[in-house]
Amino acid sequence: MQMDTPGAFSFREVKALDGALGRAGEITTPHGLIQTPAFIPVGTKATVKALLPESIKELDAHAVLANAYHLYLQPGSDVVDEAGGLGKFMNWDGPTFTDSGGFQVLSLGVGFKKVIAMNEDTFRSDEVIADKKERLAHVDDDGVTFKSHLDGSMHRFTPEISMKVQHELGADIIFAFDECTTLHNTRKYQEKSLERTRKWAIRCLKEHDRLTKERNHRPYQALFGVLQGAQYEDLRRKAAKDLGGMSVDGVEFDGFGLGGALDKEKLGTIVGWLCEELPRQKPRHLLGIGEPDDLFVGVENGADTFDCVAPSRQARTSAVFTQDGRVNMTNAKFKRQFAPIDASCDCYTCAHYTAAYINHLFKSKEMLASTLATIHNERFIVRLVANMREAIIRGDFFEMKKEFMGRFYGAKI
Amino acid sequence: MQMDTPGAFSFREVKALDGALGRAGEITTPHGLIQTPAFIPVGTKATVKALLPESIKELDAHAVLANAYHLYLQPGSDVVDEAGGLGKFMNWDGPTFTDSGGFQVLSLGVGFKKVIAMNEDTFRSDEVIADKKERLAHVDDDGVTFKSHLDGSMHRFTPEISMKVQHELGADIIFAFDECTTLHNTRKYQEKSLERTRKWAIRCLKEHDRLTKERNHRPYQALFGVLQGAQYEDLRRKAAKDLGGMSVDGVEFDGFGLGGALDKEKLGTIVGWLCEELPRQKPRHLLGIGEPDDLFVGVENGADTFDCVAPSRQARTSAVFTQDGRVNMTNAKFKRQFAPIDASCDCYTCAHYTAAYINHLFKSKEMLASTLATIHNERFIVRLVANMREAIIRGDFFEMKKEFMGRFYGAKI
Repeated sequence: MQMDTPGAFSFREVKALDGALGRAGEITTPHGLIQTPAFIPVGTKATVKALLPESIKELDAHAVLANAYHLYLQPGSDVVDEAGGLGKFMNWDGPTFTDSGGFQVLSLGVGFKKVIAMNEDTFRSDEVIADKKERLAHVDDDGVTFKSHLDGSMHRFTPEISMKVQHELGADIIFAFDECTTLHNTRKYQEKSLERTRKWAIRCLKEHDRLTKERNHRPYQALFGVLQGAQYEDLRRKAAKDLGGMSVDGVEFDGFGLGGALDKEKLGTIVGWLCEELPRQKPRHLLGIGEPDDLFVGVENGADTFDCVAPSRQARTSAVFTQDGRVNMTNAKFKRQFAPIDASCDCYTCAHYTAAYINHLFKSKEMLASTLATIHNERFIVRLVANMREAIIRGDFFEMKKEFMGRFYGAKI
Repeated sequence: MQMDTPGAFSFREVKALDGALGRAGEITTPHGLIQTPAFIPVGTKATVKALLPESIKELDAHAVLANAYHLYLQPGSDVVDEAGGLGKFMNWDGPTFTDSGGFQVLSLGVGFKKVIAMNEDTFRSDEVIADKKERLAHVDDDGVTFKSHLDGSMHRFTPEISMKVQHELGADIIFAFDECTTLHNTRKYQEKSLERTRKWAIRCLKEHDRLTKERNHRPYQALFGVLQGAQYEDLRRKAAKDLGGMSVDGVEFDGFGLGGALDKEKLGTIVGWLCEELPRQKPRHLLGIGEPDDLFVGVENGADTFDCVAPSRQARTSAVFTQDGRVNMTNAKFKRQFAPIDASCDCYTCAHYTAAYINHLFKSKEMLASTLATIHNERFIVRLVANMREAIIRGDFFEMKKEFMGRFYGAKI
């Protein structure tokens, strides 16, 4: 945190969650406030898919998260820089995040979505083997060499390059470059990788500080360290202690990203290990989590902000949230439902359109189907997490959780 | 025109265009005013592709035109009726049009877009032959039998069914069911077809009147007769005289649709023939025309309103309008154009986004590319026609035309 620029970036805890690690808080950024816990919609390529920024504002999202990897490849972070930074480029004047590209260079860089295939038997120390026949991404102690998923061209990310890219993108909150492992790696590899990520964290802090001074005419960017350690308690606690206490020439992380392989069943436990070790006065972002039950568990265990593509991705495939669970809008039962998707929803879509119309748009393969369903799903999740905040402040978080979970998941809980 | 419901539908001429058939005017509908000449964006399936209704309002479109054929097949005109009509269904509170389905049952009904293949040699009197091997649409004196382009199911439209469908859709302005011929039909067939369309016009007026009385709790719908006659002056003039003077039990057409095969070179001449014969106190809609040069010619020769899918269809393929002609937004020269698509444009897109961002969205295949380009193109054409209106009122239409055409088409004119 840059103590010499008061107000540029800060976090304050508003109220602690009784009997748990969670809290309601407030992140101040140069582009405005984020009241936490908060869900941050993802705008991978500098656009929340199918939405105008006015619609994002209207669903009361406090920030948007874009991906350094994607914007580095297209249009190029230098282009975004010349445009005045991510927010100005995409006409979003609120707070912005960018992830480091660490996850994407390994997952998308090898051409497979969400799967980093690493076989323990064939695993070789310094390589991520995406396919037994062809190695497409190489991790070494200095960085990652990867192939673009767009055109197959070769690229290299190091901690320094990730910092440069994210400074050019200019988001309010950026993340340290880390190696994202999977649950399939050996314990030995996880240890080695964690140490690598720790060293990269130091390099990120240094380069971030240098760039912050070099580009001091720009609004201050907060740097979050990313915590790995897979399913291992000692490694997770070590990561949190290492990065939580890290100071390079007086420069510390402004907050933390909780990342890596997270088994759904152990999600709360792992977030808990991390948050127990982390300094309480700094914000924590749980990367890539957006399912309602996971959000409750994340909030309960101390995560302040969340991002996930799921609400909008599911919306585009016609799966929408209701208080009583997820439904598919192409279902014939909606053909004559001349009422909103969810009567209790306060979103633009539910205020102005019937389920019958949304059903028609999906059946007709009209783009507006994605737009209206995305507005609804994003609002549903943003509001759900905002309601958790209110419940923490009121003091009835666990009652609220029980009530929601019972209705949404029904007999499944 | 229903003289017993004053204000429900009317047209008044505001100013005539000196030395030509054109005029500035005003159409009053139960859902508001349309200041003419006006371009009406197309929302084929009850949505202007990629746009929220708020965006359509913001580009100052005065009305939206949907297609009876498409909505009859999906979701069904009865569903739209139950929803409270087209406007309510799609959350558009302004004036609406629906076309009769006459063009679509013959063109889309046979599974080919925009081409009704009729070979003069093989032409048989009562059939539209879409393909020599398979007849998919059959025209007879009573109506048209056609195959759905969605699922191949068989359907039949008659003048009475088209009226029923359009009354269920409930648009402010609807069109009589006509047979749309092509320039490839024989003169003999054009004569026969024109007589058929004339008889259908009588049946439409009768059925429209019956439905208007039966559904008298609904806002009044204005019925426009559709004029065919292909490239033949005598047939065109006859069509205008026949339908222009048509009265069935005191019920007349409220306006006219100028339809059918229109060679670009003869467009102005044909519109002129029609408008010379039509009663001056009723509005005229030129169906399916939206190219800038065609719009000037149409306005000059007496057309009041226009619809066309071209501005939005072109936008989705990254072709956008500028004062200096059409450009393709994927062109590499836009990568670093940190200025709007068109500096003289007042649309939402040009006010808030650079050409560089639009280029990035198209390169990234993001839906927002279509949304922003559609807003721009629709606004460009809506504004162009609104500017023609202002020029007619000011008295400098031909100067304005010359200036625009010189810039937009350059050396091509």
